[in-house]
Amino acid sequence: MSAISVDEFNALLTEKLPMGVALGIRAESIGKGTARLVMPFAPLLTRPVDVVCGPALMTLADVALYAVVLSAIGRQEMAVTSNLNISFLRKAERCDVIAEASLLKLGRRLAMGAVELIAAGSDDLVAHVTATYAIP
Amino acid sequence: MSAISVDEFNALLTEKLPMGVALGIRAESIGKGTARLVMPFAPLLTRPVDVVCGPALMTLADVALYAVVLSAIGRQEMAVTSNLNISFLRKAERCDVIAEASLLKLGRRLAMGAVELIAAGSDDLVAHVTATYAIP
Amino acid sequence: MSAISVDEFNALLTEKLPMGVALGIRAESIGKGTARLVMPFAPLLTRPVDVVCGPALMTLADVALYAVVLSAIGRQEMAVTSNLNISFLRKAERCDVIAEASLLKLGRRLAMGAVELIAAGSDDLVAHVTATYAIP
Amino acid sequence: MSAISVDEFNALLTEKLPMGVALGIRAESIGKGTARLVMPFAPLLTRPVDVVCGPALMTLADVALYAVVLSAIGRQEMAVTSNLNISFLRKAERCDVIAEASLLKLGRRLAMGAVELIAAGSDDLVAHVTATYAIP
Repeated sequence: MSAISVDEFNALLTEKLPMGVALGIRAESIGKGTARLVMPFAPLLTRPVDVVCGPALMTLADVALYAVVLSAIGRQEMAVTSNLNISFLRKAERCDVIAEASLLKLGRRLAMGAVELIAAGSDDLVAHVTATYAIP
Repeated sequence: MSAISVDEFNALLTEKLPMGVALGIRAESIGKGTARLVMPFAPLLTRPVDVVCGPALMTLADVALYAVVLSAIGRQEMAVTSNLNISFLRKAERCDVIAEASLLKLGRRLAMGAVELIAAGSDDLVAHVTATYAIP
Repeated sequence: MSAISVDEFNALLTEKLPMGVALGIRAESIGKGTARLVMPFAPLLTRPVDVVCGPALMTLADVALYAVVLSAIGRQEMAVTSNLNISFLRKAERCDVIAEASLLKLGRRLAMGAVELIAAGSDDLVAHVTATYAIP
Repeated sequence: MSAISVDEFNALLTEKLPMGVALGIRAESIGKGTARLVMPFAPLLTRPVDVVCGPALMTLADVALYAVVLSAIGRQEMAVTSNLNISFLRKAERCDVIAEASLLKLGRRLAMGAVELIAAGSDDLVAHVTATYAIP
């Protein structure tokens, strides 16, 4: 069972991560070591031409990895990303974006996870992300 | 000489990259293959506890790389990041962040650059970023 | 169906990639967009203390991605890695290592894939790798 | 002053890293937080067509980062790479390759460094590498 509920995570987001709020990111489901988040399309997210911009995708991926780390260790606000790698695969054109995150490793000091970003309403993989988290 | 001026780049940012605008990112200087940008501290950028969040740093780095790519190829809006890797090195606590970007390679189809993110008013390296751009 | 057979790929390895040969790497199966390779344990691969070294793991991952790219585009020797990111997750102690590779995207100019490296005889994930290939 | 001398590092390489030996890698100079290594051209290193292969370049970069980490913390054999990212920029055709490594951060638990790989006898940047080391 996840060490943080969807409601607890979304409340943490609301209180403490204003960029996540500005982008409308919210968790839909969190299991132990997995999380699914959504970022609804909005003009704020765009770059030329009506495509969701890279920074919005990186923000979604980073928040999704935070969710998946907290699903394992509970609400520890000071867990921080130490490295993130993103490969952009396809354009996400005027659409909501789904993040499917999973934890690949949980060590005492480091956690590592992967995220697939998918264009909602299709199976198109928009980006693939891996990241390492430092655990306090 | 840069193929895009600071004013032209900042105008492009204003028109076409609302996330860059929301974060207050602007270019200070652009040479051929180099660029310096600044992101002023604001509450929107924070995560626990009063530290500039990773997504804000990734946004700044991505915009800085865009500047440095356009410094070489001119205003080509459809140049897009294909891969970005960021290592977070030190916390940036309630401070403006400077991006110093440089182009490492310019090919016909790919450009590659590096960015150092520095806490303003210190020499502290906050993050190191490398990224690849696909050129249309 | 794969555009290259296991035998063709192993023959290419033998003729053209002496480092792969020195490390004993060989493909076990190749499907369209997937490949499984093995690297048998040998003293050449070690680092302190009797652990398979990072360079050996990176070599295995790179060869596995080459296999999976050629499974889609056929024997094109000039396909080259443009970016590779590896996260080391657990030690591989004195054991064969399995690579399970899959293609995440095949574009006209770029292919992108992921590899999981697994300690043979366990389900332990030793490393997770993503890489981009430039297609000639 | 470096916490490990060139001779000590090359002796460690000879005793404990047979892949480094097989590739002829050796340190030329090590300062506190910097290191320069060389990998002489040899047929073992090639891929089609007479180009130094990616795995050889990754091996050189990883050994160079090991040198630069040990220059700061002394001979600690169990320091291990936790993440490595390499961007391949230009072909290295039948030439020795030089690695210029520098330490970007030394924390209690993590070190992070960058390496430029250069074709000997030119200023051509062959690859750019960043990596994180876990410190025991």
